[in-house]
Amino acid sequence: MPSTEQFVQGIRAGDRYLLSRAITLVESTLPAHHKQAQEVIEAVLPHTGKSVRLGITGVPGVGKSTFIESLGQYLITKGHRVAVLTVDPSSVVSGGSILGDKTRMEHLSRSYNAYIRPSASGHSVGGVARKTREAIYICEAAGYDVVLVETVGVGQSSIAVHSMVDFFLLLMLAGAGDELQGMKRGIMEMAHAVAINKADGDNEKAAEQARMEYKRAMHLFPPNPSGWQPKVLTCSALYGKRIDTIWNEVMTYHEQATSSGWWTGQRSQQNVWWMRETIEANLREQFYDDPAIKTRLKELGKEVHDGTMSPFRAGEQLMEMYNKS
Amino acid sequence: MPSTEQFVQGIRAGDRYLLSRAITLVESTLPAHHKQAQEVIEAVLPHTGKSVRLGITGVPGVGKSTFIESLGQYLITKGHRVAVLTVDPSSVVSGGSILGDKTRMEHLSRSYNAYIRPSASGHSVGGVARKTREAIYICEAAGYDVVLVETVGVGQSSIAVHSMVDFFLLLMLAGAGDELQGMKRGIMEMAHAVAINKADGDNEKAAEQARMEYKRAMHLFPPNPSGWQPKVLTCSALYGKRIDTIWNEVMTYHEQATSSGWWTGQRSQQNVWWMRETIEANLREQFYDDPAIKTRLKELGKEVHDGTMSPFRAGEQLMEMYNKS
Repeated sequence: MPSTEQFVQGIRAGDRYLLSRAITLVESTLPAHHKQAQEVIEAVLPHTGKSVRLGITGVPGVGKSTFIESLGQYLITKGHRVAVLTVDPSSVVSGGSILGDKTRMEHLSRSYNAYIRPSASGHSVGGVARKTREAIYICEAAGYDVVLVETVGVGQSSIAVHSMVDFFLLLMLAGAGDELQGMKRGIMEMAHAVAINKADGDNEKAAEQARMEYKRAMHLFPPNPSGWQPKVLTCSALYGKRIDTIWNEVMTYHEQATSSGWWTGQRSQQNVWWMRETIEANLREQFYDDPAIKTRLKELGKEVHDGTMSPFRAGEQLMEMYNKS
Repeated sequence: MPSTEQFVQGIRAGDRYLLSRAITLVESTLPAHHKQAQEVIEAVLPHTGKSVRLGITGVPGVGKSTFIESLGQYLITKGHRVAVLTVDPSSVVSGGSILGDKTRMEHLSRSYNAYIRPSASGHSVGGVARKTREAIYICEAAGYDVVLVETVGVGQSSIAVHSMVDFFLLLMLAGAGDELQGMKRGIMEMAHAVAINKADGDNEKAAEQARMEYKRAMHLFPPNPSGWQPKVLTCSALYGKRIDTIWNEVMTYHEQATSSGWWTGQRSQQNVWWMRETIEANLREQFYDDPAIKTRLKELGKEVHDGTMSPFRAGEQLMEMYNKS
């Protein structure tokens, strides 16, 4: 195992092997690894924060990988260095291997200026999210100035991703049967922009129609707390159409939010959120992993479920038991 | 102070004075009161669960009180007994007094078959919500078969209300400047029905237009997990127009959800949610109220906020400190 200093120097010097090993270290559940990972993060911290962190979400089949391939290549031609991280709790890709994504982002993965890293496995949603949040630090310290965080737009993972990115892009499809898109309504609330993908060939008209519909729907809601009004756009990731328009949208937001102070303010809030999340996840874990609590929770939980016991009384009984032990 | 037995008998016998005192007991923060309140709830539990619990939300000015006045009177003429509870963390109405609402729901408050109780004050959002959840039990034991829970449709309080009602009704206005309605987008996700209020006189056409727009917007999202497709309706609370249509909608849902088992299933889930919420609120409170933690959190929180310390390391340091003490 390299020393913390070797890790930090390697990461800073652009050593991809040490970068990957550092992320593997972060993902490890072994206590010794965890300790060193925290040292590495602490050491690279002064070199972080300079990238644009862009979250990309959408249901399977919407074309997230193709979109990232296309956007990534566009950004590289513009001189950027791009890291791609995924938050997918259902992923079974083994930590460290990029084989799973090689087939998905063939061109991008061959570029020296791109670094693709699939989701850590063997963790809870919160766990995967946290590991990804830490991997962002490491990629930034390695000089990647755009970090793309991909997530399947369902449930908790989106909330976690929302707490680590600066801009949240929601990919949608036209005419795919809207209810089939399985998108939680709350996700539209988080989006800084919505892009209707696969706006090409026969599908272009339908995409434009969908764009108008979503635009109308977005208008029914209050603006983002930053004052930003999310746009609805169309694009074709496959043919690289209007990928630049979407990136320009990110840049417009970046400018506005930087000059208003929102950009930094949001990151500060996210930092505090992650500290609290770390604490509260630990508190919950300690409680629910307690063997005596586990047994009693099963018994009381059944009574509460069936309505034969007050949920408040049950909760308090469990807390009393926990505090005594 | 009446004994637990006296409370229970009084509540069951329809004694309004003891009903009110029981809710005041539930709202109290004194440990001795808290203990007795839990005994009362435990004792009335077998007599709860038989009401329809209807959540009503919307921004200030949408006409919630007028709507509840109108719906309440309609229900009473149909032979129901109606309890009205409010979850409003910003409310400063003193516990037990109904003066604040008397001016708001003048007719309803005079009816023997209605019981109106404003929000408990002096609590956090979670605290107010929990007290209200407990008050539902007490009202049900007192024989109220419809419980209306009113909340301002912003932030956390709606989520808490969603976890205690069977049907969630969102009131909206036409042409009030949609962004001014300040409605979190996520709230539309929870709604079982949306009603555009003040659909009367000159405003009728605009209300119908708004209804069409919201209907289209609702359609863009997947159906409720229960399979229920939320309808968008118009009404005039002031003139009592289409209040019956809205109640019929609640009844249609009640029938469908009862026969599918969703009604009971949702209540079981809510029970378990409240047990967990009780536990986790306690865990958080114990942690954040710890004097040593408070001091250290302030210091580390600043560093985390400013990005000079890793949020994960800070969180873990605080946990280590907490576990040692």
